[in-house]
Amino acid sequence: MTPSDRPGRIGGVDGVTDSPLDGLWWPGDHRGGALMTGTALLGAAVRVEQVWLDALVDVGAAPAGARADLGDLAGELDAAALSQASEAGGTFVMALVASLRAALRDSGRETAATWLHRGLTSQDVLDTAVLLCARDAVRAVRRELRAQAERLVVVVEEHRGTSVVARTLTQPAVPTTFGAKASGWLHGLLDADEALAALRWPVQLGGAAGTLSAVVELAGADGARALQRALPAGLGLEPAAPWHTRRTPVTRLGDAATTAADAWGRIANDVLALGRPEVGELRDGSAGGSSTMPHKANPTLAVLVRRAALAAPQLAATLHLAAAEQVDERADGGWHVEWQTLAQLLRRTVVAAGQASDLLRGLHVDAERMAARVEDGADAVLAEQRSMAALTGRPPAATYLGLVDDLVDEALARARTHEHPVNAQEDL
Amino acid sequence: MTPSDRPGRIGGVDGVTDSPLDGLWWPGDHRGGALMTGTALLGAAVRVEQVWLDALVDVGAAPAGARADLGDLAGELDAAALSQASEAGGTFVMALVASLRAALRDSGRETAATWLHRGLTSQDVLDTAVLLCARDAVRAVRRELRAQAERLVVVVEEHRGTSVVARTLTQPAVPTTFGAKASGWLHGLLDADEALAALRWPVQLGGAAGTLSAVVELAGADGARALQRALPAGLGLEPAAPWHTRRTPVTRLGDAATTAADAWGRIANDVLALGRPEVGELRDGSAGGSSTMPHKANPTLAVLVRRAALAAPQLAATLHLAAAEQVDERADGGWHVEWQTLAQLLRRTVVAAGQASDLLRGLHVDAERMAARVEDGADAVLAEQRSMAALTGRPPAATYLGLVDDLVDEALARARTHEHPVNAQEDL
Amino acid sequence: MTPSDRPGRIGGVDGVTDSPLDGLWWPGDHRGGALMTGTALLGAAVRVEQVWLDALVDVGAAPAGARADLGDLAGELDAAALSQASEAGGTFVMALVASLRAALRDSGRETAATWLHRGLTSQDVLDTAVLLCARDAVRAVRRELRAQAERLVVVVEEHRGTSVVARTLTQPAVPTTFGAKASGWLHGLLDADEALAALRWPVQLGGAAGTLSAVVELAGADGARALQRALPAGLGLEPAAPWHTRRTPVTRLGDAATTAADAWGRIANDVLALGRPEVGELRDGSAGGSSTMPHKANPTLAVLVRRAALAAPQLAATLHLAAAEQVDERADGGWHVEWQTLAQLLRRTVVAAGQASDLLRGLHVDAERMAARVEDGADAVLAEQRSMAALTGRPPAATYLGLVDDLVDEALARARTHEHPVNAQEDL
Amino acid sequence: MTPSDRPGRIGGVDGVTDSPLDGLWWPGDHRGGALMTGTALLGAAVRVEQVWLDALVDVGAAPAGARADLGDLAGELDAAALSQASEAGGTFVMALVASLRAALRDSGRETAATWLHRGLTSQDVLDTAVLLCARDAVRAVRRELRAQAERLVVVVEEHRGTSVVARTLTQPAVPTTFGAKASGWLHGLLDADEALAALRWPVQLGGAAGTLSAVVELAGADGARALQRALPAGLGLEPAAPWHTRRTPVTRLGDAATTAADAWGRIANDVLALGRPEVGELRDGSAGGSSTMPHKANPTLAVLVRRAALAAPQLAATLHLAAAEQVDERADGGWHVEWQTLAQLLRRTVVAAGQASDLLRGLHVDAERMAARVEDGADAVLAEQRSMAALTGRPPAATYLGLVDDLVDEALARARTHEHPVNAQEDL
Repeated sequence: MTPSDRPGRIGGVDGVTDSPLDGLWWPGDHRGGALMTGTALLGAAVRVEQVWLDALVDVGAAPAGARADLGDLAGELDAAALSQASEAGGTFVMALVASLRAALRDSGRETAATWLHRGLTSQDVLDTAVLLCARDAVRAVRRELRAQAERLVVVVEEHRGTSVVARTLTQPAVPTTFGAKASGWLHGLLDADEALAALRWPVQLGGAAGTLSAVVELAGADGARALQRALPAGLGLEPAAPWHTRRTPVTRLGDAATTAADAWGRIANDVLALGRPEVGELRDGSAGGSSTMPHKANPTLAVLVRRAALAAPQLAATLHLAAAEQVDERADGGWHVEWQTLAQLLRRTVVAAGQASDLLRGLHVDAERMAARVEDGADAVLAEQRSMAALTGRPPAATYLGLVDDLVDEALARARTHEHPVNAQEDL
Repeated sequence: MTPSDRPGRIGGVDGVTDSPLDGLWWPGDHRGGALMTGTALLGAAVRVEQVWLDALVDVGAAPAGARADLGDLAGELDAAALSQASEAGGTFVMALVASLRAALRDSGRETAATWLHRGLTSQDVLDTAVLLCARDAVRAVRRELRAQAERLVVVVEEHRGTSVVARTLTQPAVPTTFGAKASGWLHGLLDADEALAALRWPVQLGGAAGTLSAVVELAGADGARALQRALPAGLGLEPAAPWHTRRTPVTRLGDAATTAADAWGRIANDVLALGRPEVGELRDGSAGGSSTMPHKANPTLAVLVRRAALAAPQLAATLHLAAAEQVDERADGGWHVEWQTLAQLLRRTVVAAGQASDLLRGLHVDAERMAARVEDGADAVLAEQRSMAALTGRPPAATYLGLVDDLVDEALARARTHEHPVNAQEDL
Repeated sequence: MTPSDRPGRIGGVDGVTDSPLDGLWWPGDHRGGALMTGTALLGAAVRVEQVWLDALVDVGAAPAGARADLGDLAGELDAAALSQASEAGGTFVMALVASLRAALRDSGRETAATWLHRGLTSQDVLDTAVLLCARDAVRAVRRELRAQAERLVVVVEEHRGTSVVARTLTQPAVPTTFGAKASGWLHGLLDADEALAALRWPVQLGGAAGTLSAVVELAGADGARALQRALPAGLGLEPAAPWHTRRTPVTRLGDAATTAADAWGRIANDVLALGRPEVGELRDGSAGGSSTMPHKANPTLAVLVRRAALAAPQLAATLHLAAAEQVDERADGGWHVEWQTLAQLLRRTVVAAGQASDLLRGLHVDAERMAARVEDGADAVLAEQRSMAALTGRPPAATYLGLVDDLVDEALARARTHEHPVNAQEDL
Repeated sequence: MTPSDRPGRIGGVDGVTDSPLDGLWWPGDHRGGALMTGTALLGAAVRVEQVWLDALVDVGAAPAGARADLGDLAGELDAAALSQASEAGGTFVMALVASLRAALRDSGRETAATWLHRGLTSQDVLDTAVLLCARDAVRAVRRELRAQAERLVVVVEEHRGTSVVARTLTQPAVPTTFGAKASGWLHGLLDADEALAALRWPVQLGGAAGTLSAVVELAGADGARALQRALPAGLGLEPAAPWHTRRTPVTRLGDAATTAADAWGRIANDVLALGRPEVGELRDGSAGGSSTMPHKANPTLAVLVRRAALAAPQLAATLHLAAAEQVDERADGGWHVEWQTLAQLLRRTVVAAGQASDLLRGLHVDAERMAARVEDGADAVLAEQRSMAALTGRPPAATYLGLVDDLVDEALARARTHEHPVNAQEDL
């Protein structure tokens, strides 16, 4: 079993949130499971310490007697106490290291206790653990995006001939097809997935101030270089120059997550607008009820997806601000503001991803109503065609759908060649 | 015992959070206790239902047999299940009403089950409950602001004669006193408390679409008017026109909370800048340590306070966006995005309030070092005085402190006459 | 002629913008006239210098020979050169003072040149000038809000009996009246006007670091106190403790402006949603056309108003961040970021105010279509009533409009007693 | 001369802004020249119309007589009138097309007047023109980034042996070198340039609703496909599926620009913190003065750069919101809010880029003071080393600089192999 296989479970990162009432404030929160929870973060931090301790022994910096399996101890940690203790140190890492050392000593593993965390600083552990958590969240989002893209491919194919009124600035414009419309949604999802796929997952390893001085003191320069390779290798991350106060890995995450939320928000808005019964061309299948109105069938999923899209940009802005407010070799607040901001942004992105999948899965397309409205409104929606025909002196063509077939084919082709290497990543 | 005295405990709103690991992501979160938790929200919602049920009986709309004490049932609610069920309805209220009705029926209180919630809509319950929770949070913040103002009054008085270099754009400008500097901090806290004190606490009561139609159907127009008075009276809120899609009560909360965060952030920045050891004029007493550097004494409280100030504005922006995106008689996402955004903003404000109190309490002012630097830098910091003296043709005055005494007196007078009617509010 | 009567024109603050192409990027920008332009800012800064110079002479700090009318000079200033020179000093004030002094010397007024600006610092001039500009913008907004409220009073009265389907989460809920709906809009406008009316207009006067040390050096303590009264009196502002690094006057402006944008955004959303031809209950009278579709009648005003509401919250957030990032006695960036952010927020608010007025003025309400839809959908929209009637055992009442009459009366009463003391302010 | 060589000058896009007083509100604005001005936008729009008209003739859709050089007409346009007229149509394009047609007719070119703009919609012209303007701005930013990277390479090399105290959370941590510190800055600049280099420049071409229906009506399917190739080719843009309501090209621009602002903000913060005279290790060479304090030497450039970094994230957030609020085939406000937001974000980015270049160029590094402080503080900053040595049982190494040499080499190598293909792009 390689270090990276160790699950680092703390009281069980088994898919269950440790904030089970958050759904009262953010309906659907349970979809996030254990992703971006405190439990997940602690588990990831222990995993970082584990891989590092193993590596210290492997490269000969620490004696063989320092080898220890932290997995058992992790299950014994008092997570709530660590959470509370985090204020004194500004992060929980000091308290975590102290707890793990105490537990190692209690079980007679003094040497491991001594060597645990040596050479690292809190930020190494925390930044790396946050990225491990984030990677899990991004994988979950990408799985949903893949499912959504697959679903949209079917929708696009099914409705490439379904006439529908195109609307601009809320008013009927010209005819299009629902397949073309859904092709636009599909491009949006693929754009988002490209942004997520392009994310980088650099290990954070610099020691107290990004120089790896303690590591060199402990292991010599060559040993330090070996450790620089071992930590990311053990965690499936990229080796990287320290990014203690250069936060591009974090801002990219925020930007990509927001790009996904944008794509879903844009779809939700169409479902909401075309789902008004007076339009009645789309219907969110969620059919949420009312506490007082027996007849209500509310587009709950679309509403909740749209909600997430309204909130994401400001969270991503906070991450950029945090990056802009870096200073020295560890920032005085600009670092600390990142953690929960990112956790919430990513968790909500996971939740919205699932809701968007369900929304697309249950979406009802009323092709007849779409077609009827094109017919009823033909006089208006073909006004442009008449003016073009007047220009050419030729009679108007039989249809006025331009290159929708090309556009639909292009979108389908992009979807089919788009790589979703989520599973590959999971093997890391 | 009047309805408003009922604590509405659900599994114990006893000051303990239901997300005990949130401190891992936001160190200090435990300071928020039960404020703005799911537990608190559920408790407040049950309290709204209780007061309403009582009032329905009181005004004769419901039969006497509908009277029931929901307090016992509340303790039995499966909060996590309600949290999860909230997605289907878009809010947890439908599921809560169903649970309470089932429990009433199980205990033979069929009539109460029948009448529970009648005339209300989910938004009435949720908006009112959110405001009840928010009021508790604002009270907690105002208690801290009072303590901070009291502390600063002492600091200002103690240091009204302590010379210190005033700095502009990071560079030495002219002399001032630390009392004058702290007076500026004090004004900021009082500005924030004024904003919080000016908040309005309107009940939400409008039924399905803000017309109170169901209430009139059940109780007649006069009965409905009596219920319009009874609900806010029972909850200590203001009677108000429905604000289903006019969200000023929420945006004001966000703006006021952010104003408080601004005031603390500004103080924290001074502590951080003047606490750099090369300056050494202030010292955050929190002395946070390091996981690897034995000598470190970090200004942890100032760092964490500053962190909160960096995040608050974007959360308040989301609340304004939510207000701007209202439509119809209940918004399709613009409403839903408010809840967790507000909960988080207020909880973090409570946390920052406590941290700021501790920061001020433990703040070390090195008056000697301040004075020494004024003396050492006299040549530069008195350059302006020399140019003014050249203008008047008179020799420079003995000091160059302008009207700092007036300014200090003015700040102290404001603090002493400023009302902190927090206790009065608590009697509600 | 008192100092405050002096218009401080620079090349003519005559209602014409100095950025006449900004409408290409923000259609409707010309509505802002000269408000919040560079010209207006320079003019206000000269006015501050004028009132101060007059006051220095009046209190006897400067000799009578220092008296000078800057109005003539102002017209000669090279505003573009000052704009460019602002980078070197961080603000334009140093360059402005140098220009004015040079002009005074060129015209033989050496004594005035010597005394100009003495005792002030750049921030005194700039903050005060910004507030003078902002006050003009707020007055313009409040004039529009008054016109809008007057218009809505007429609409509410006219349509208090107009049945319309209330919609929640995009779906039909219960009946209401369009008068009740417009009452909600009206409350929103009045909330916004209350926020604007509550704004404070404090002079900034503190000298180099908020201590008024130079002023005392020049005029003695009593003279300084007289100057503290004279400057705000001459400008129609409030005397105030220095707020160099306590930016509540600025954040309040941002919050209030955003509150107005929220109120208009909410109205625009209704116009857009109910103006979709499939609904067809409202129609934006602006009827914007298309560059290619001859039949288009776009709701341009509603679109542009909504646009402003989407952008305002983030600008207000930047103002709060600026406040949170204050430090020392003049902030290193947190101050500088305010100016254009505020200017743009307020200018856009003025533009949106005018557009919202026109939108309401030209709004077409299709009462017949509203009524027809209530009738057609009676089965659904009266479902709640039937369930309430089942509960009471009484037959459903003839209508299901609840207390809409009360609510409409309440809104009208509020509008009629609401004070719009804009003209009074203008006399300042 | 190919179409893409035509400069599309309107009244001279010659590097001069059309808002020459904007520097009063945003000092340094003049550095933006004509970039992202109204003039630039109009010029780009005319260029789009020109390339399109040429292409219509080239593919045989329009008769040869429709060929016309719009360059001359462009110089005659009344830009201010178009700016003002933009409100009626929601964009200026309708008015522009009308003006150009009128001018063509006035000069007897009736056929060109008839064919101008045929097949396009306003959004095609505007989106494409905005991207052309944005590309110019991004090129300007990248030129500065290249200069900055070159400068930093020199700094890093010069100071790879300069000892300096690393600081974390404002407090001394361990020793590092200034070369290592500047390597971190350098990585940040390269990250930003990578983000800018990865931007895509897709043409917008879809006609009324993204289907190219008018184009097909005019030119047939094959002609339409030829036009799809001709427009981007003529403008040096990428062919692309219509992105009318999928705004990734815009949000990517915002994210990348903000990433650059983050990188500069982070540098400015170091300059400001280490430039406090009590630290005195760095000095911003701009030495801004004061309007009242003769001795002041303010770090004006660092202050102005930091300012930009505080504002950018919220503007980028507005662009994401705009993307999230897309609906139908042209959004009702979500589109319109983009233009000025993007223009301002990019123009400020250009300004900050230039200021950051000057900041780095004039930066004074006080290597002696840095070294002296390491020496003075050796006891503290080597505390970690002592605890590591205690662990190994070996005496502490002679230095404690870890792998700084590796890190510096790695940064230099990255800079040297980093491609800045700005000139290549310019050949487009």
